[in-house]
Amino acid sequence: MAKQKPRTLSGFLELLPEKQVQFDRMVEVLRRCYSLYGFTPLDTPLIEASQVLLAKGGGETEKQIYRFTKGDADLSLRFDLTVPLAKYVALHYADLAFPFRRFQIGKVYRGERAQRGRFREFYQADIDVIGDGKLDIVNEAEVPAIIYSTFTALGLRRFQIRVNNRKILNGFYAMLGLGEQSAAIMRTVDKLDKIGPAKVRELLTETELALPPDAAGEILNFMAIKGGNQEVLSALEGYRGRHPLFDQGLDELSTVVNYLAAFGVPEGHFVVDLTIARGLDYYTGTVYETAMLDHPEIGSICSGGRYDNLAEYYTDKQLPGVGISIGLTRLFFVLEDQGYLNQGMNTAPADVLLLPMTDQLSTAIAAATALRQAGIRTQLYTEQKKFKQRMSYADKLGVPFVLILGEDEIAQEKVTLKDMATGQQQTLPLEEAAQQVLAYLRQFDQMTPIIDT
Amino acid sequence: MAKQKPRTLSGFLELLPEKQVQFDRMVEVLRRCYSLYGFTPLDTPLIEASQVLLAKGGGETEKQIYRFTKGDADLSLRFDLTVPLAKYVALHYADLAFPFRRFQIGKVYRGERAQRGRFREFYQADIDVIGDGKLDIVNEAEVPAIIYSTFTALGLRRFQIRVNNRKILNGFYAMLGLGEQSAAIMRTVDKLDKIGPAKVRELLTETELALPPDAAGEILNFMAIKGGNQEVLSALEGYRGRHPLFDQGLDELSTVVNYLAAFGVPEGHFVVDLTIARGLDYYTGTVYETAMLDHPEIGSICSGGRYDNLAEYYTDKQLPGVGISIGLTRLFFVLEDQGYLNQGMNTAPADVLLLPMTDQLSTAIAAATALRQAGIRTQLYTEQKKFKQRMSYADKLGVPFVLILGEDEIAQEKVTLKDMATGQQQTLPLEEAAQQVLAYLRQFDQMTPIIDT
Repeated sequence: MAKQKPRTLSGFLELLPEKQVQFDRMVEVLRRCYSLYGFTPLDTPLIEASQVLLAKGGGETEKQIYRFTKGDADLSLRFDLTVPLAKYVALHYADLAFPFRRFQIGKVYRGERAQRGRFREFYQADIDVIGDGKLDIVNEAEVPAIIYSTFTALGLRRFQIRVNNRKILNGFYAMLGLGEQSAAIMRTVDKLDKIGPAKVRELLTETELALPPDAAGEILNFMAIKGGNQEVLSALEGYRGRHPLFDQGLDELSTVVNYLAAFGVPEGHFVVDLTIARGLDYYTGTVYETAMLDHPEIGSICSGGRYDNLAEYYTDKQLPGVGISIGLTRLFFVLEDQGYLNQGMNTAPADVLLLPMTDQLSTAIAAATALRQAGIRTQLYTEQKKFKQRMSYADKLGVPFVLILGEDEIAQEKVTLKDMATGQQQTLPLEEAAQQVLAYLRQFDQMTPIIDT
Repeated sequence: MAKQKPRTLSGFLELLPEKQVQFDRMVEVLRRCYSLYGFTPLDTPLIEASQVLLAKGGGETEKQIYRFTKGDADLSLRFDLTVPLAKYVALHYADLAFPFRRFQIGKVYRGERAQRGRFREFYQADIDVIGDGKLDIVNEAEVPAIIYSTFTALGLRRFQIRVNNRKILNGFYAMLGLGEQSAAIMRTVDKLDKIGPAKVRELLTETELALPPDAAGEILNFMAIKGGNQEVLSALEGYRGRHPLFDQGLDELSTVVNYLAAFGVPEGHFVVDLTIARGLDYYTGTVYETAMLDHPEIGSICSGGRYDNLAEYYTDKQLPGVGISIGLTRLFFVLEDQGYLNQGMNTAPADVLLLPMTDQLSTAIAAATALRQAGIRTQLYTEQKKFKQRMSYADKLGVPFVLILGEDEIAQEKVTLKDMATGQQQTLPLEEAAQQVLAYLRQFDQMTPIIDT
C-alpha cells in the first residue's frame, strides 16, 4: 500500500511524552494557583459563529483567523479566550454571580507567519474578574499577587511584574493638550528602550506628530521617572491637580502599590513602569506586563489589565473587569529552549515496571493491582522478550523502579525491587517495596516544573 | 451601539460553572486512573493536514469532517483521537519505547445532525497500548480491568463490560464457509436485540444473503449461547478443531477471562457476549463494549478492541495495539440528564469567601494569603455592598464558609467563621478557622463525581 508521509503542521506544537508531562505539570500548577484565588474553571467551545466571534470586527487579528463554512454556517476558531468569555458572560448573565471570577486554560488559533517559537495553535491561560456595573480597585492589586504566586509556584524567580495605569498616561497627555494624539505618541514612546531618548525626541518633533519641543521634553522627562515604587509615586505627585483623570489614575496606582505588600509580593518582583501602555484599546486602568529579567528579548510572559466594558458588543450591561493572560505554549517553548525545565522531574509513564518471570501471571497481576491501589503508577510488562531487552525498555522509559517477580520471589512471598538510578536491588515483601517507592515519590511533591537559579 | 446576540453553536456543550467543575472532576478521575496503569498523557493538535488525517479515505466519517483551507493548506479538525495517534506513532517512532502506552483526553469534531444529546464538539478519553511487531494478549485482559477501575472510581456501579473476540466470529463464519459474507451477516445479527431471532432468521435466509436454512440455524444457535463466562467458554469448546482462527480466538478469550479475576474485576461486571462485533473493520481480536445496566438505550459508554495495524497508512511497520475510548461529553450529558451527578460535591469557586468589614484591608489580605498558603481556596470580597448583599452573593456562589473580619475581630486577633450550611458562626483565631475548613474539605476527598445507588 502507498504510504502517506506522517507530519504535523508547522506552527503546531506536538510534544514527546516526557515533555508533555512537563507541560501538563505546568498546567496543573496554574490550575491550582488560579483555584486558590477563587477562580472557577471554564471550557468554552473552540468554534464560534463568525458573526459572534468577530462582532467587534476589523483589526490585525481578523486576518489571522481560521474561518470556514460548514453547511450554511460561517464559523471561526477562537483566537483568544477573552471574546468567548465576553460572549459567555453576556449569554449566561442571569445564571452568574458577580463579581464573576473564571480561569480558562485552552488552545487558541492564529494563522501567523510560521517562525521559530511562534505558534498557530497555542495555549492561553487566562484569569478574569468581571464586575456587574462596578468593580473594586482591590481586584487590580490582587492580580499582581496572583502573577507572583503563580510564577513562583512554577519555579521562576528572576521575573518582574511591571505596572502602570492608563488613566495616568491618558491624563498626562490630556494635561499637555495632546489627548487626541496620545495613541500615536505612545507608539513612539514605546520605542524608548530600542532607540533611546534622543531618537524618540526627533520622532516626536520632526515626524507628522510635529510636537513643540517643550512638549516633547515634558514627555521624555515624564518617561524618565524611575526608581523605587515610592519614589516614582512621589515624582508623580508633582503632576497632581493638573488633570482629574491623571489624579484618579495616580490614586489607583498608589492603592495598588500600597496593597501589594499585604498580598505578599516582594518589592523586587514588582515595579511601577510608566512606559508600559499595552497596545489594546480596551484597557482603561491598571495595566500589567511581566518580564523575565535574564531574557528581556522574550518580551512580556504575562500581560493584562483593567477594562471598563467586557461585552459591549453583546449587551448593554456595563461589565468592567480585570484580567491577565499567559501565552503558555510560547512560554513553555522558551523555558525549554533556555534550559529552565526541571530535569529532575519524574517524567516516566510509570513509577514501577513490573516484570513477571513466570508463565503464570496471577501473582504479578495481583501485585500490580495492589501497587495501583497504593497510588503507585504501575506498568505490567508481559511481552515475550529477553531479560536484557526488558531492562533496556525500563531504561528507555526512565521508570525509577523495576519490580521482578520470579519463582523464587513467589515461593518466598517477596518481590525484588531494583532502583534504576543506583542499580541497587533488594528482595523484600511487596508492602515494603511499595513503601520505598512511595517514599521516593514524595521527594517530587515539592518540586517545581521550572528551575531558575 | 448595535448589539450582536450572543449565542453558542448548536451541538457544542458550554457548561455553567458548577457543572464545569463536575465535568472537570470526571476528567481528573480519568487522568488519575489511566496514569495508575502506566499510560502517559499526549496532547496532539486539533488541526491536521487533510491529506494526513484522511489518508485512510472514504467512510461515513469523512462527510462529517470539518475541513477547510487556510492559505494554500487543506486542513481538517480531528474527528477522533486514533488517527492522530497513528500519525504520532509513525512520525515519532524512533523516539518512542514499545509497547507505547498513552492516554489522551481531548476534543474531537464531527458535523453530525444536531439533536438532543448528540454533540459536534465532544471529548473523547482514550487509552491505547501499541506494540512494535507484537503485543502480548495480557494487554487485552488488562483493558477491562482499566475500564472497571475507571468507572468504579467515577462512582458508577451498575455497569457491565461485554467482551468478544473477532477471531471467534470470523473463524465461526469461516467454518460455515461464509467467510466472504461475514460482514453482511454480522450487520444482520446485530439486530437480534431489536427484532428477535425469528426476524433475523428471515433476513438471513430471504434477503440477498440467501443463506441455506441450516446455516441460519447454526448462526442463531451460536448467538444464543449465553450464561456465566465459564459456561459460554465451555459451549464454545464444542466448536474447537473446526477452524484454526476460531481456535485461536477461543484461546485468547479464555486467557482474557481467566486473568480477569487476578486483575480484580468482579464476575458480575464482566460478561462474554458473542453478539458484540464492533462495526470498525480494523478490530481483529478482543472487542469491548460497556453498558449501563439501567440504561440500555444509551448504548455502549466505553468501547474498543484489539487491532493488528494501527498506522498502516503511514508506515510499513507493523504496529498492533489495543485501545478503548470513552465519549466523555455524551456520557456527562447522560449522567446529568439521568440524575447521576453527585449533588453533594463542592462545586463552589472558593472554599472561603472573606468579607472585610473595615476600610483598611491589610489584615484581610494577609488572612486571605495565609488561607491560600494552607491550600484553602479563598476569595476576597471587597465590593462596596451592604452586608446582606454580600451574604446573598456567598449563597449564590455556594461557598461553604464565609469569614468575617471586622474591627472587633481585628482587635481580638480573631476571625468570625460562618458555616453556610448550618448557619453557625464562631469567633476564633484564623489558624483554628483554617483547621475547621480543612477538616470540612477532607470529606470531599473520597467523594466520587457520580452517585449510582
